[in-house]
Amino acid sequence: MIINRSQILRTPGPTPIPESIQHAMSQPMIGHRGSAFSDLYKDVTRRLQPVFGTKQEVFVLTGSGTSALETAVVNSTQPGDEVAVIVTGAFGARFADICEAFDLVVHRLDIEWGKACDPEVLRQFISSKSELKAVFMTHCETSTGVLNPIAQLADVIHEASDALVVVDTVSSAAGVPVEMDRNSLDIVVSGSQKAFMLPPGLAFIAVSERAWKVIKANDTKAFYLNLAAYQKNHEKGMTPYTPAVSIIFGLQQALTLLESEGLDNVYQRHDLLKKMTRAAIQGLGLTLLTSDEDASPTVTAIKATNTFDSEGLRKTASQSFNLVFAGGQGKLKGKLFRIGHMGACTPAELLQTLTLLELSLYKMGYSIVPGTAAQKAEEVLIHDL
Amino acid sequence: MIINRSQILRTPGPTPIPESIQHAMSQPMIGHRGSAFSDLYKDVTRRLQPVFGTKQEVFVLTGSGTSALETAVVNSTQPGDEVAVIVTGAFGARFADICEAFDLVVHRLDIEWGKACDPEVLRQFISSKSELKAVFMTHCETSTGVLNPIAQLADVIHEASDALVVVDTVSSAAGVPVEMDRNSLDIVVSGSQKAFMLPPGLAFIAVSERAWKVIKANDTKAFYLNLAAYQKNHEKGMTPYTPAVSIIFGLQQALTLLESEGLDNVYQRHDLLKKMTRAAIQGLGLTLLTSDEDASPTVTAIKATNTFDSEGLRKTASQSFNLVFAGGQGKLKGKLFRIGHMGACTPAELLQTLTLLELSLYKMGYSIVPGTAAQKAEEVLIHDL
Repeated sequence: MIINRSQILRTPGPTPIPESIQHAMSQPMIGHRGSAFSDLYKDVTRRLQPVFGTKQEVFVLTGSGTSALETAVVNSTQPGDEVAVIVTGAFGARFADICEAFDLVVHRLDIEWGKACDPEVLRQFISSKSELKAVFMTHCETSTGVLNPIAQLADVIHEASDALVVVDTVSSAAGVPVEMDRNSLDIVVSGSQKAFMLPPGLAFIAVSERAWKVIKANDTKAFYLNLAAYQKNHEKGMTPYTPAVSIIFGLQQALTLLESEGLDNVYQRHDLLKKMTRAAIQGLGLTLLTSDEDASPTVTAIKATNTFDSEGLRKTASQSFNLVFAGGQGKLKGKLFRIGHMGACTPAELLQTLTLLELSLYKMGYSIVPGTAAQKAEEVLIHDL
Repeated sequence: MIINRSQILRTPGPTPIPESIQHAMSQPMIGHRGSAFSDLYKDVTRRLQPVFGTKQEVFVLTGSGTSALETAVVNSTQPGDEVAVIVTGAFGARFADICEAFDLVVHRLDIEWGKACDPEVLRQFISSKSELKAVFMTHCETSTGVLNPIAQLADVIHEASDALVVVDTVSSAAGVPVEMDRNSLDIVVSGSQKAFMLPPGLAFIAVSERAWKVIKANDTKAFYLNLAAYQKNHEKGMTPYTPAVSIIFGLQQALTLLESEGLDNVYQRHDLLKKMTRAAIQGLGLTLLTSDEDASPTVTAIKATNTFDSEGLRKTASQSFNLVFAGGQGKLKGKLFRIGHMGACTPAELLQTLTLLELSLYKMGYSIVPGTAAQKAEEVLIHDL
């Protein structure tokens, strides 16, 4: 029997694409050197600014989230530079790997996966490192569902050094407030396939004036990811190389959806989704990886235990209910599963997801009380009705 | 805050259109006098036969469900003919209205709305009426959610007279088994916008050999709805007048979905949806219109009471959750609301609908226990997992 026909994609990226965005992406192709494209590009880059809390230009590159991380690294540093990387999970580790690949002197601040970086721990860590050129950090660590306190971490860095503050907001921007200017973040990067409700393929990069001075003084060997080339073309409403035009059509509609909902409402919705998820998970007797304080509004990780098989849960949810969760990454592989609740995810959709999660547990033979997931999630939701 | 973004259409027609059907309907237009169309028409009409349980030709007309009812009436009768109409709700009444409009002598068997017609009551009713040319009845009475026992009713008619048995299966076919040949039904009509998962616009009509003899002996004044014209064109894979080509493209895909799920599984799913709905409604303390025995697998009616405002519920569900239910029709207007659970409706979707119904009651100020609807529906569902 078909219990659920269309796949429910609850991974922390890619995320479901709203129909109006699909339609926008189906517009006839246009050339990327004509005025139709430059009008489009100017429109979306201007409208991206509030999402990153910045008056700086936001560049749109065609590439994955990793391309955005690499862009930040190669433009802000030169081989031999000392940098610090806060590693709270697989994507912090990726920042470190990229830094090492480009021959930087990398100081890794490893935090236990599942916990946020405490600003005092960072303060201690960088106190003896006066030569740091940049500190790389992850806002939402997708692999663990942790949201790092970037405002406080940035304060600590600025107090201690002249290092640039570089922040990966791939799985936070458009789901969680990002306040680049207010928090004095120097480079903020993100990607299209998470809370922006778009397919993978676009990277977003905003650069502070302070960072531009460093970038321009550097002699970066990057070509495709060279930010100066993007800046040079930006005023004309162009990109230096051929962009993913149809995803940019989609971005225009995604911004319309975000604006019509209102960014504050978008953030409030994600916060609610987090609370609903956590309440249901606890009601079902499963174990959350992160504390309430460290939890991200966009993704929730649930631990495997001696009595809970997280990989089996993913398999059952997929096979029986066409419901897709993510597994663990890096050293957490096989040790947890993750529910993405960002972008095109409403409380109504989450209620369904959590109920099907409960039924997956039943199907696996775990003891559940029917209705528990809905009850716990509804108890959270009704406060906001 | 956006609790639910896309409208959830839970009326008993129109019903949601699956994406693959939307895509099929977006194919480039073709001429209706070419071989591409005749291949399409031959394909869909052949594949409709199992849905109606018949080896007879199934004609596809472009029109609403009412056009299908009128086609049955005008072709099977002549002015002055005596007919009986079993009226169990608004659509039985419509059959009677059409019969009266065409100057038939109409014997109405009025059954209390919300109850099915008992075959013994029909036996009594027609025992003194030996001149009946046809008896019209409704399989699923959409206005009340009653499923009439057409097999037994047909038996009663055939035992008592030579009257044609004409059945409206608009809201049953493709959701409930229709056994035209096995039950000796003479004319079976249906429409596209219910369990067929299509937009409104197509009418389906199957005719027994016995009925053809009557139709051909009649001198019907019908032109657009003249079945002989459809039969004449049928062999060529054509319709006499311009058909709704894109909906027929959709029909082809709808049949593929029904076949790939398997008709028996489709019927089992609808039966499950009925039981889940009824369990949740009772768990929420609301009042079902029909008995378990009379209830249709495709639509459920819930009564307004002194303590339950069904129109308020519809308004709240629509405004707060973008969830659309139907109200009452005819003399039940304002006295109930109806949940359509047919066609593109899965148990997973229904769980969400019932949970949002529960939250609508909360929003209206009724006392509810969060999770009750999900609990009751899940308790039914898990038997089939």
